[in-house]
Amino acid sequence: MTTAPTPPHLLLGSCDYPEHVPRDRWATYARMQKELGLSFVRIAEFAWSRIEPQCGRYDWAWLDQAIEAYHGCGLRVVLCTLTATPPAWLIRAHPEILASDEQGRVREFGSRRHYDFASPVYREHSRRLTLAMALRYGRHPAVVGWQTDNEFGCHGTTRSYGGASAAAFPEWLRHRYGVVERLNEAWGNVFWSMEYTDFSQVRPPMLTVTELNPSHVLDYARFASQQVADFQKEQLEILREMSPGRFITHNFMIFESGFDHYQVAQGLDFATWDNYPLGMLEFFAPSGSGEEVKTRYARTGHPDLIAFNHDLYRGLVAQPGLGREGRGTPNGPWVMEQQCGQVNWAPYNPLPAGGAVQLWTAQAWAHGADVVSYFRWRAATMAQEVMHSGLLRHDETPDRGYAEVETLDQTQFPVGPVPARVALLHDYESLWLYDQQKHSASLSYWTQTVAYYSALRSLGIDVDIVHADAGLSAYAVVVAPAITLVPPERAARWAKAVEGGVALVCGPRTAFRTPGGQTWETGQPGPLSDTLGVKLLQYDSLRPTLSQRVSGPGGDVQAHGWAESYRLQGAEALYSYSGGPLDGEAAVTRRGQVTTIGAHSPELIGAVLADVLQRAGVETTPLPEGVRLSRRAGRTLVQNWTLDAVQWNGLSLGPVSFMVQEE
Amino acid sequence: MTTAPTPPHLLLGSCDYPEHVPRDRWATYARMQKELGLSFVRIAEFAWSRIEPQCGRYDWAWLDQAIEAYHGCGLRVVLCTLTATPPAWLIRAHPEILASDEQGRVREFGSRRHYDFASPVYREHSRRLTLAMALRYGRHPAVVGWQTDNEFGCHGTTRSYGGASAAAFPEWLRHRYGVVERLNEAWGNVFWSMEYTDFSQVRPPMLTVTELNPSHVLDYARFASQQVADFQKEQLEILREMSPGRFITHNFMIFESGFDHYQVAQGLDFATWDNYPLGMLEFFAPSGSGEEVKTRYARTGHPDLIAFNHDLYRGLVAQPGLGREGRGTPNGPWVMEQQCGQVNWAPYNPLPAGGAVQLWTAQAWAHGADVVSYFRWRAATMAQEVMHSGLLRHDETPDRGYAEVETLDQTQFPVGPVPARVALLHDYESLWLYDQQKHSASLSYWTQTVAYYSALRSLGIDVDIVHADAGLSAYAVVVAPAITLVPPERAARWAKAVEGGVALVCGPRTAFRTPGGQTWETGQPGPLSDTLGVKLLQYDSLRPTLSQRVSGPGGDVQAHGWAESYRLQGAEALYSYSGGPLDGEAAVTRRGQVTTIGAHSPELIGAVLADVLQRAGVETTPLPEGVRLSRRAGRTLVQNWTLDAVQWNGLSLGPVSFMVQEE
Amino acid sequence: MTTAPTPPHLLLGSCDYPEHVPRDRWATYARMQKELGLSFVRIAEFAWSRIEPQCGRYDWAWLDQAIEAYHGCGLRVVLCTLTATPPAWLIRAHPEILASDEQGRVREFGSRRHYDFASPVYREHSRRLTLAMALRYGRHPAVVGWQTDNEFGCHGTTRSYGGASAAAFPEWLRHRYGVVERLNEAWGNVFWSMEYTDFSQVRPPMLTVTELNPSHVLDYARFASQQVADFQKEQLEILREMSPGRFITHNFMIFESGFDHYQVAQGLDFATWDNYPLGMLEFFAPSGSGEEVKTRYARTGHPDLIAFNHDLYRGLVAQPGLGREGRGTPNGPWVMEQQCGQVNWAPYNPLPAGGAVQLWTAQAWAHGADVVSYFRWRAATMAQEVMHSGLLRHDETPDRGYAEVETLDQTQFPVGPVPARVALLHDYESLWLYDQQKHSASLSYWTQTVAYYSALRSLGIDVDIVHADAGLSAYAVVVAPAITLVPPERAARWAKAVEGGVALVCGPRTAFRTPGGQTWETGQPGPLSDTLGVKLLQYDSLRPTLSQRVSGPGGDVQAHGWAESYRLQGAEALYSYSGGPLDGEAAVTRRGQVTTIGAHSPELIGAVLADVLQRAGVETTPLPEGVRLSRRAGRTLVQNWTLDAVQWNGLSLGPVSFMVQEE
Repeated sequence: MTTAPTPPHLLLGSCDYPEHVPRDRWATYARMQKELGLSFVRIAEFAWSRIEPQCGRYDWAWLDQAIEAYHGCGLRVVLCTLTATPPAWLIRAHPEILASDEQGRVREFGSRRHYDFASPVYREHSRRLTLAMALRYGRHPAVVGWQTDNEFGCHGTTRSYGGASAAAFPEWLRHRYGVVERLNEAWGNVFWSMEYTDFSQVRPPMLTVTELNPSHVLDYARFASQQVADFQKEQLEILREMSPGRFITHNFMIFESGFDHYQVAQGLDFATWDNYPLGMLEFFAPSGSGEEVKTRYARTGHPDLIAFNHDLYRGLVAQPGLGREGRGTPNGPWVMEQQCGQVNWAPYNPLPAGGAVQLWTAQAWAHGADVVSYFRWRAATMAQEVMHSGLLRHDETPDRGYAEVETLDQTQFPVGPVPARVALLHDYESLWLYDQQKHSASLSYWTQTVAYYSALRSLGIDVDIVHADAGLSAYAVVVAPAITLVPPERAARWAKAVEGGVALVCGPRTAFRTPGGQTWETGQPGPLSDTLGVKLLQYDSLRPTLSQRVSGPGGDVQAHGWAESYRLQGAEALYSYSGGPLDGEAAVTRRGQVTTIGAHSPELIGAVLADVLQRAGVETTPLPEGVRLSRRAGRTLVQNWTLDAVQWNGLSLGPVSFMVQEE
Repeated sequence: MTTAPTPPHLLLGSCDYPEHVPRDRWATYARMQKELGLSFVRIAEFAWSRIEPQCGRYDWAWLDQAIEAYHGCGLRVVLCTLTATPPAWLIRAHPEILASDEQGRVREFGSRRHYDFASPVYREHSRRLTLAMALRYGRHPAVVGWQTDNEFGCHGTTRSYGGASAAAFPEWLRHRYGVVERLNEAWGNVFWSMEYTDFSQVRPPMLTVTELNPSHVLDYARFASQQVADFQKEQLEILREMSPGRFITHNFMIFESGFDHYQVAQGLDFATWDNYPLGMLEFFAPSGSGEEVKTRYARTGHPDLIAFNHDLYRGLVAQPGLGREGRGTPNGPWVMEQQCGQVNWAPYNPLPAGGAVQLWTAQAWAHGADVVSYFRWRAATMAQEVMHSGLLRHDETPDRGYAEVETLDQTQFPVGPVPARVALLHDYESLWLYDQQKHSASLSYWTQTVAYYSALRSLGIDVDIVHADAGLSAYAVVVAPAITLVPPERAARWAKAVEGGVALVCGPRTAFRTPGGQTWETGQPGPLSDTLGVKLLQYDSLRPTLSQRVSGPGGDVQAHGWAESYRLQGAEALYSYSGGPLDGEAAVTRRGQVTTIGAHSPELIGAVLADVLQRAGVETTPLPEGVRLSRRAGRTLVQNWTLDAVQWNGLSLGPVSFMVQEE
Repeated sequence: MTTAPTPPHLLLGSCDYPEHVPRDRWATYARMQKELGLSFVRIAEFAWSRIEPQCGRYDWAWLDQAIEAYHGCGLRVVLCTLTATPPAWLIRAHPEILASDEQGRVREFGSRRHYDFASPVYREHSRRLTLAMALRYGRHPAVVGWQTDNEFGCHGTTRSYGGASAAAFPEWLRHRYGVVERLNEAWGNVFWSMEYTDFSQVRPPMLTVTELNPSHVLDYARFASQQVADFQKEQLEILREMSPGRFITHNFMIFESGFDHYQVAQGLDFATWDNYPLGMLEFFAPSGSGEEVKTRYARTGHPDLIAFNHDLYRGLVAQPGLGREGRGTPNGPWVMEQQCGQVNWAPYNPLPAGGAVQLWTAQAWAHGADVVSYFRWRAATMAQEVMHSGLLRHDETPDRGYAEVETLDQTQFPVGPVPARVALLHDYESLWLYDQQKHSASLSYWTQTVAYYSALRSLGIDVDIVHADAGLSAYAVVVAPAITLVPPERAARWAKAVEGGVALVCGPRTAFRTPGGQTWETGQPGPLSDTLGVKLLQYDSLRPTLSQRVSGPGGDVQAHGWAESYRLQGAEALYSYSGGPLDGEAAVTRRGQVTTIGAHSPELIGAVLADVLQRAGVETTPLPEGVRLSRRAGRTLVQNWTLDAVQWNGLSLGPVSFMVQEE
């Protein structure tokens, strides 16, 4: 086991699959990786059928040999727990492992992630196999860390709607509510005579005649999230015991919504995520500007979408690397899989612009990544991902990403803190509830949240994305874009932070819903009413062809998608609606340090945030489209995400490029 | 039981759910309702699980108390039969009650309307529970009427494709056809060797390899409609016996197509419907102008869509209130649920414009409503509809609709007849058949029918919408926009009306199909050929980017979606096609008092109808966009549905407003 | 049995359904058909339930009589094998005959083609019934040929995903691979631990969590195709034995992709297909120009889409009519069903332009058809297709197509060879693989292939469409637009053709994939690398709003959808990319007689093909939009497919018209 100190700068790695190539390539690849400047290799992600070709018959030889090949070249190895792809012999023997989709159809064997997290049989095999791996490699000197499973929740796999999950849900409810009357109360089941007389009557929320009870959905999301956490915890406990001194992480997904990531991240040393900027863009481009943004950033991805995920996963583990410092591996977050050429899973899969791989790597560093690991070493020549690129092509020649990695100076990226004075609050329960009842089809939790995030980055602000219940006292400004579920305890915590001098900004629908998924009988924003100094008056859902004028200090702007107004109860109106059903009512309010924004409008959000930041003494730097600043360890990364050269602030930035400036 | 005379003017009410709020609110709400000027309250719609928390254990106390609260304030109570929401204990004990969808999936418990109308078990519980309610409250002095179930057919619940319905369909067919050869003949099953040798071989029309036999679909629609009628009839018989002197109605839905409303309305005292103008617009905006119309009327709804439903449901019961006059409750149709703020079930749910609630109420009166009942008293704080408005907000403060109701003078709306000299014919069998084989994806039965209706209203004409077999002699002009199914008896009835002096206007596809769903072997329009004086020559299905020129007295217009031509056999051509495959062929024909319009073109329809009306001595008043006239009881309601003030005919109409003019 | 010589010119026929009309019409129709100039009638296509109303009880009398009616008028009869529509008595007795869809739902009785080709029970009934038909009519003097079943694969019916097919697939795999390790190897199952330990574990490719293994899909497509071939072969063997001297054919479908047509056509005398130009257009309009092209050709269909199918099916049987010459029936391909009025199965179903039926008939002749048979004689008055036209209307009056047939001079269309010097290569395995992993959603195998075909026709070139493994030595130029699956043997065959002097043009993705569906470990285009003189460097998937500039001798053009670049290994670059990620890399290359086109651009394809053709000594005639040339038997058919008169090359062509010029 390496005991060197934490490296001083960003390190690189790649994801490799020795089982996909002939054995004679292993040593060659290891040497090439080392020569390219890579330090890490992640392996054995989907290798269950090769490690255990039949039940209980293990074949360790090949993996022993592969690890030795990397080890021999000085590469540090990250191993996976294999459970993302249960093999055919297990599935056919125990078909009850398979999950069911929302239509009640069994999700079949033949790709990956085809298991129900709640399956007792699968849990048993997960523990058995994790133990076997940990016993074999847990103390291997080349092995520096573990990745559990792969991309929890990918392809909508958090929630299974039949079998083991359906069987476990009633018990989970009984544990939560004790008596069924409390369940009925919490869900408001009186509404349509949906009251249960026994927990066993409750099923997963699916196939109802019309819309689902949002409280039913919310609890099912909580239940399913708990299954993921429990599933991983079992692996964690085994690995902690059998593989001391190694880090344990999981590679999370872009904007994955299926489970509570804060809950699942508990016990990990740090989080990693899989960064595919171009595929991401096709699915998560900012709303209202879809085709235009997708075209402009087709070859780079959108900087704020990527940065959001970096900041989200950096903040996922409150104390990263706890107890692991000085062990020779970074303790901060990683990009476990970094796109380095075209992907294969979006409707369109363009090539990255020249320079994009370096820009993505630099951005990852500036947002806190200690390691960036490219996916994948060599493009697969078989099965589902043959059209996905690697650093090497199918024929082992270097692909476009290779050259960019080769010429990247890692030492310009020192490890160190990201100096954020602004926090953005995030909460998966709010996400589930918001998206279950959007009321305005053009908005979602992510859309609304990213609009605030993007406004901050357009002002050159570094942001921590933290849980809605995180400690806030260290921040000058806290932004709660869409925290629609605010229990009294959370409201009290925010109020206390405000008392402590934190400036708070809330977006529409804040505190609209109770922890059970109902609305406050005393009106919205429930327990936050005093802090905000307002009561919700009206909310307007705007189809894309409708807008609502908002007038204020900076002139008029148009709200899109959503507009809510307030009755002032201690706050003053900063902006008001003019014309339409909300004419004359407050659109943006302020009570002391607390600002509430009721209208959805990127322009308005930017203006209000700029004002709040200025008052809070946080310096802003308004940036042109496609230019971004990110700071870390005393350096500033100036980025140009456009395909054209840009002159900005006295700097000449080439197309798709960056500069590292020391402060 | 009240025995006062029929009230002289429109009365108001609301839908309330005492079971959704603490008991201490009941008396308060009743008092507030009375003070607001409401006369009626509809309750107990979804309260089964509270009335019967376990099988056979009734809890009447709370409802007794709630009724007393309303009664004590002088409110008249409409009770519901509870059957729209069977509770969990019943469904889990008898899962065979659940319906199946067109994909064969069981429609699960967890929302509402999750029952198969054909289920013998459910029928038994429906009778049992209706009897229990009727015994308890049938002669209660506060109870003035009953609503059966709720919104039959909502969420596509008329037709179940498995279980009880699948089991009952063969017997229904045996009853209809006697021997299977007659079924084969009626359905034309020889076509693809679809002939059955036994009724038991027949299943619901679903999941076939390619399109369904339209005759199969037509008979399944008839079968399912019969189940709804039978289901309700069982409740009706119990209520008539056990609750003498009370009216019985059902709250029908906007443009609901699942069952034959004339059949289901039999035995009711009058029809009521649920009027949600803004939600309706998103789903039923006139074709060809979708986004533009949806935007213009986003905050008021489209006057003609709403008016169509008023006129449809006013005409549903041939002799409304039969035998119930003088009992202190209105005998005409109601709006049982009237939107009074935003709804929650469309993709976008904008706020109504100021004045819209009053305008909707006034329009309802002018189209025959005796009572308008707002949905709902207080916005729900739990479950599926928390985003739906009420007269009160979640926190019991008055919402925007409340103020409009408060300031509305009910006495300006005297009860009396709607003086229509024009009838528009409607028939659900034609609807089913038309929509099963549209041939031109941009048209449907409703689209085509509403185009004719809207043309009439644009000319300031009051319209009765009546069944295609209704008596027509009282009308000057009868319009049959899309009656595609015309049996010989119907044709004879129309011919007789024409002989009697009625002017008849038929739209495209009239009498295209036989009662079995086939086409006439003697050519179209089958038995109506002589009356129309034409034979169908060709029909052209026009994609949205294609049009067909029509030339006539008023110059050229363009047909969209559909163009059919005729061979003249007694009729003359009023308009002819020019250019294209129909060049020179007749597009609009006339034989005596009978006009046939073959081209779909709102402009052409308006011009032809104006001419027909003039010849028939019916005065027309061409109206600008958004201005409408409706007459009742000797008064004319002048309406401005636009967001701008309008000068018209010497009148100054404010935005979203009306005037009541006495003749 | 007729023994007259092969007729000297195109003959006509119609599809008739005596069982759909009263018996007294049969003789009348036969006489009318003869008088109209028809020579053939196809009957009994869907008549199973009338031939065998109950299991084993045959009713031959009516068909005897119908055949006599045609025979009496000198019409030659084509009989069908009835198996496309198994009747209810069989399906309800053996529900296991029904196929399952990709969602696992049983495809129900009630339309047609509701059988699983792999069903042993159905196979038995297919043989039994075919034998009964062959025994009864196999030597009848009026019967000149047979059509097997009807439109194999229509409505996605080639592949069943349950029941008999699911049961047979493992055995088919065992037969193909012997041991399961070879299967795992061929499919690359190691990729996601998808390795099987027993053939019985393998299921149809369906309902997986994420995308399917393309190799799994490819083998299932092969398996299903084999079932179709086997199914038909059983009928063929019976017919060959029991109906000597009659031709046997099948009526294939427009761009049908479900099975390998070359495999299924084996043993047929020639192929026929069902030509519906207008319906086809709505579904297969060239990509990138959808609405515009669909509008322009709405009333004629697109000439190249139709011509492609003619050329495809002409080339399907390598030696048409083998051993059948001189028997009085044509030996070339037929159009078995020719649209002659509106169809009923597209979203919009416009009327054909005047002249279109004659133009379609003339084009069919010029592309090799010996017989054109109109669908159908009289429009059906019952069931699914009442809106579909026939030569007669529902009321037996002549519809618009009738007049065009009546005035068409058949003798201007002599039978003879199509003089193609250019071959276009086609391969269903490449189609399956390409479409399973499109990588760029706007392109498909057909889109790319038709782009090359259309470029050739725009240059006035006659084209043979032949299998990718066909003999090529007779051609001057061979175009392989999208043959993505190229085994070494195929590569060798092409290389040999090139050595023999053939000019070869390959499109993007050529030889990208191995026969197992993987990619070449030595890089693409695998075994074709030497012949093409290139290695694939990069491939770019372009969303519709992105393009990539290509620069070359003819200036700049824009690539859409796809752009791939090459490393030159013997070839030279004709065109190169400029700007973007492919800047400076080769877009079009040439090595000797072999040209590779990497960018998708109709303009570029046209320019490169024109150059290749000129070098190969094939004369080109650049044609304006909508004008086409086709040559046969020493004559040239000049066609105007536009709705306007055209002056071209000294000729005056009326709207939608043709001229036959003798060379």
